[in-house]
Parts: sequence; C-alpha cells; structure tokens
Amino acid sequence: MAGVAPRSASAGGRAVSYGALRGFCGEALIRAGMSSSDAETGADVLAMTDAWGVFTHGSKILQGNLLRLKGGGLRGGARPTLTAEGGAWAIVDGGSGLGMVTSAYAMEIAIAKARTQGIAYVGVRNSSHFGAAGYYAWLAAREGLVGISMANDVPTVAAPGSRGAIIGSNPIAFSVPVKGRRPLLLDMSIATVAGGKVYAARERGDAIPIGWVIDIDGKPSTDPSIFPALGTLTPAAGHKGYGLGLLIETLSGILTGAEFTSRIGSWMKDGPTAPTGHGGAFLAIDCAAMTPQADFETRMAQLVDEIHAAPRADGVDRLYVPGEMEWDRYERAMAVGIALPADVVASLAGAAAIVGLDIDRDLMERN
Amino acid sequence: MAGVAPRSASAGGRAVSYGALRGFCGEALIRAGMSSSDAETGADVLAMTDAWGVFTHGSKILQGNLLRLKGGGLRGGARPTLTAEGGAWAIVDGGSGLGMVTSAYAMEIAIAKARTQGIAYVGVRNSSHFGAAGYYAWLAAREGLVGISMANDVPTVAAPGSRGAIIGSNPIAFSVPVKGRRPLLLDMSIATVAGGKVYAARERGDAIPIGWVIDIDGKPSTDPSIFPALGTLTPAAGHKGYGLGLLIETLSGILTGAEFTSRIGSWMKDGPTAPTGHGGAFLAIDCAAMTPQADFETRMAQLVDEIHAAPRADGVDRLYVPGEMEWDRYERAMAVGIALPADVVASLAGAAAIVGLDIDRDLMERN
Repeated sequence: MAGVAPRSASAGGRAVSYGALRGFCGEALIRAGMSSSDAETGADVLAMTDAWGVFTHGSKILQGNLLRLKGGGLRGGARPTLTAEGGAWAIVDGGSGLGMVTSAYAMEIAIAKARTQGIAYVGVRNSSHFGAAGYYAWLAAREGLVGISMANDVPTVAAPGSRGAIIGSNPIAFSVPVKGRRPLLLDMSIATVAGGKVYAARERGDAIPIGWVIDIDGKPSTDPSIFPALGTLTPAAGHKGYGLGLLIETLSGILTGAEFTSRIGSWMKDGPTAPTGHGGAFLAIDCAAMTPQADFETRMAQLVDEIHAAPRADGVDRLYVPGEMEWDRYERAMAVGIALPADVVASLAGAAAIVGLDIDRDLMERN
Repeated sequence: MAGVAPRSASAGGRAVSYGALRGFCGEALIRAGMSSSDAETGADVLAMTDAWGVFTHGSKILQGNLLRLKGGGLRGGARPTLTAEGGAWAIVDGGSGLGMVTSAYAMEIAIAKARTQGIAYVGVRNSSHFGAAGYYAWLAAREGLVGISMANDVPTVAAPGSRGAIIGSNPIAFSVPVKGRRPLLLDMSIATVAGGKVYAARERGDAIPIGWVIDIDGKPSTDPSIFPALGTLTPAAGHKGYGLGLLIETLSGILTGAEFTSRIGSWMKDGPTAPTGHGGAFLAIDCAAMTPQADFETRMAQLVDEIHAAPRADGVDRLYVPGEMEWDRYERAMAVGIALPADVVASLAGAAAIVGLDIDRDLMERN
C-alpha cells in the first residue's frame, strides 16, 4: 500500500465513519447470504482498507462480491476447511467462500501454529480476491508476530521479453510489530504500478509514463486505454518483480493445489456464477519464541528511529517506513471519518441496490 | 543472479575446470587455518557461483576472506553453534567463521526441520559476507524443497527521499525444484542494480543511466565514480525494493540478534581484524509434506512450459524463468571449463600469494 497515492479527503469525498462503513458492508454481506460472523470479518477487511486510504481494494469491491454471492461464484455459506496439516503448516480449502473470510481464517491458523513452532505456512486454495494483502499480515503483527501474506491472480503482468501477460500482479504484504509505534506494513504488487493507477490516468485523460505498460507487440506505450485488453503491466524492476511473482505463484498457487496463472477465473471479467479458484499463502513468525519480544520490538524501533533521523534530500520533509502513510490516514479516518472518493460512493450505491439497502439511509446518515 | 550480465567467455578469460577451481579455493582456505571439511564447503560455494557466471560473488571474494582469516576478523576454527531452537526454527551463531560455512550449516538445519514440520526458519548472527545467496536456496531445491535465503549488509542503498544510504543491498534468493528441469533460481539484491555494475561502468569509463545512483545531495547522477563514497544505490522499484529490504533486515538482522544497518562491519573497507557481524535468514519448505512431490514438481513444470510457450516481443528469442541463464552457463562451465574474467584471475593471483600458492602451478595448470 505504501506509495499508493490516496484519493484526497478534500477531493469531493463523502466522509463516513469506520463503524458506519463496516456496519453497512456487513449488513450487505448478510443480505447476500453470509453468516453474521463471516460478514463481520469481510466487512472489517473492507472498512480497514478504506481507513488506510487504499480505496482500490476496500469497500469498492463489495459490489463485485455481492454479485458473485448472488450469482453463485462465491458461496456465502462456505466455511474454510483444513484439508491437511502438520506441525508448522496447513492447507485450507476456501470452498469458494469470500476471500477475506478464508484468508483471515488461514492467517489465524498460521498465528496459532507459529506460537507453538516458531513459524508456520498456511496455503489456501479455492479462494477469491482477498482485498488488501496487508490486512492479513497486520493480523499477525497486531498479535506481536511477523506476518507475510500473498496471493496469485489472473495474468496482467509481463515477463521480460514477453508480448503479453505471464503472471498476475501477485500481491505480497508483510507487517512487523515495533515497540511504541505502529507496525511496519508494506503491501505491494509485483507490477511496476498497480492497474488502478493506469485506470486512473485513463479516467483523467492523461498519458502514462514509459515503463508502466507494454502494448500488444510488447513495446512500451504511454496510452492507458490499451490496458488490459491490448496492454500489459510491466514487472517492477524487470526480472526482479517477475521472479518474485513466480515465488508468490509457487507458494500461493502451485503448492496449495489452487488454480494458477491463466487457469484462475477473473474476478472482474468472468461472470458471477463461476468460482475463480485463487490461491494464497500466509506465513507467521513468532519472534517471542526466539528472543524476548521486547528486545525484538526495541531493535525494530531503533531501526525505524535511525531511518527517521537520516539526512533527507532537499524538499523531502520526512522519510517514511512502510505503512506510516497508511497509519497516518487511518488515524485521520478514525478522528474525522473516511472521505470516500466519488467512485467508491458510486460503487457502494450499486452494492446497496443489489441487496435492498439505501446508501443514504443505511450508510451516509448513520455517521 | 538472473539478469546479471556474465563476463563473456571470449573476453580474454582463462578457462579453468570447476574441480580445479574448487580444489584451489579449498587448499587456500585450509592454508588460512580452516578444517578441510569447512574449506570444502567454502570452496564449493565459490566455484559453483563462478560456474553460474556470477563472478562478482564467486572466487573473486576468496582473497578478502583469506585476508580476514589471517587478520582474525574471520575465525578459521569457528564452528557454527545452535544457540536456541524450537520445532520449526533455530538461531545459529556463526562465531565469526566463514559466512559460507555458517550459511550452509543454517540451511541444512532448516531443511532437516522442514522435513518434520513442513517449513522452518533458521536465523544467523555473527556471520560474514556469505557470497551468493542463491547457493543456499539451491541447497534446499536440490533436495526437493523450496529454499529461501537472505542476508543483511552495510548500507549502500537509499530510501525514497533519503540523501544517503539507509539499508544494505540485502540479497534475497529462492529456488524451487521443477520436474525434469533445472530448479528455478533467483538471486537478487534490493537495489536497482548491483554495486558491481556501477564499478564495471566506472572501469569502462562509461556513464550510468539515470536511476541507478543518487549523489550526495540525493539527486540522480550518471557518474559511476561517485559510488560508494559520494553516491548511493537506489532501491529497486523505489518503495518496493526499500520495503523488501526492511523485511530482509528484520528477518536477518533484527530477529537474529545480528548487527544491523550501519552497525555491520564493512567486508571491503574495514580492516581484516574485526568481525563484521552480518546476519542471515534461511527458510525451507518441504512440499512433499503437503502434496505429493511429483504433483508439485509437475505443476511447476507446467508453469515453466507455459512461460516458454508464451508469445515474445519482436527480437526476443526466448523467455527465461529465473535461473535458466545461470544453469546454461553452468552446463557450459562443466563442459568446457569456467572462463574466469581477468579481474577474477588477478584477484586469485593475490589470494594465492597470501597463502603461498601459485596460481599457474596450483590452478591454471591443473585443468
């Protein structure tokens, strides 16, 4: 999430409280057939993501999830199942339930196993778009562990030299507790920039910089409108992002028995009746098993302090560690509400209509 | 390692056999005070790295290691010690021994623990420059496991907005077995380009592209001669490489009790009498615990085949998966010898002089 430009709170956004947004999303998910407990999990992921200012992955995706819950591509009554497990690992089958429910469950298993073994890996199959990877990493950091989360997705990113998409933008996130501070939190895709930035440039009518997208011949393009049908995202730092994407595919898709690369259903383009088969991987490391927790977190704080105190280039006010921008936005959101951008409000209105809610009555006027 | 341009075998290099190079490095390490078994481990890392064509991290670093073994900064008689362990984790103290010995030991522990628990993390402290991270990841893949290795280093890489170096180029590598094929193998630093590429441009008298290095004011520079004294490498993909570098620092330096960032001794610039205190982290995942090994490796092969078959941009002969360039070089090295670049030969001549060997008699004429 670091580096993702937030929509400005002053850009005509409508402010809602975190609680109201969470309640609205939860009610919508219940009306689409989910249990109140699972709906609460899903709603918390979406509202927290918006509070971090990552609006591309927050409640904006509620509508698509409701359509899939209605269409059968997502099964509202599904429960994640531990299909196999060992000392420090497990494989979870999501049963085509909401990706957020499956993923939160998987990370909870990883945390519990890490507490006895020091580290744990939980792989997930039959999942779906899980929203912001950072949420699940943070679930671990919130409890004092190092969390790492990742997932595969339909191919939208090129390999060096390819003409089209080879791998998904395969998100990876990590979060680390820091003494007396907010946890480190990095959530990134392995593409140079997220597809959302290309869409935003298209909406604004702007050209994009060379290096973000290649055209159908594999050549660099400045035209955002070619993506995704006739254009492909480039991998971040070339072979490095591409290679990291393959590691994520290995741990999320190959090892788990999930679908991988082009076998994954498109959450956006395919119809709402078919499961997507996404995979994911969740790792937790229990620092307290290895070293006194306070020592670990104090050393983390020293690292952060060292960065904050380092000399800055002219015109740079502050050096950030990963997550600080998101936590700043979160604190503002908790103080004055989440200023939802217009596209999110429009999407929520659509979501409301699907399940017989009213965005004004059931969200905006609840603040 | 992928993407690191190899010195061409035809560029005046002198070809030596893998066996002769390994034997020469081993003999030199024995003469510097190491046991034959530890010397063999160290020599294998160096010779294998040269066979992969990664000459910046192969036998070129023998000389510096011999100087440190002589000077006391490295202790030839040190044995790595398991200072603490649990079900799926361990912390290893290298005792300021050769980084390759400590790291190979740590990965062997990780492999053994992963075989019972599914995954394992082994953190290392009191280590030193471990050469190529990929070697240790490959140790796991060679045995059918997924291997991940990483280490911290003295700061040479900027944070977005910083004026100088904030974190090390912190290498990370992974390797994955693939049915009927050579393992995937990616070994990368979190910098846009390795420092070695900047040195090479300086030697050639070439300018470097904007984006590789910033100057002492934090501004982009095309002058390779400013690095490292008055220049700093940029992080790969900006906040992404920087953030990944902090995760590596967390797992290698903070959690292990190793030195971190500026507390690490410089392998190149500090005197040969002081230990450097590097940290490292080694993870192994036993796929066979979770899924039939053949199924996993077959799915990996499908992924690789899919990439090989994908459409290529004009002028691109082949799409590579990580490690293929290195394995191609390895096979050529095993068939016709390793064509050592002139700078490596010069360094080996220096190494030979330190321990009373003769590069012609003890290496070149042994082929």
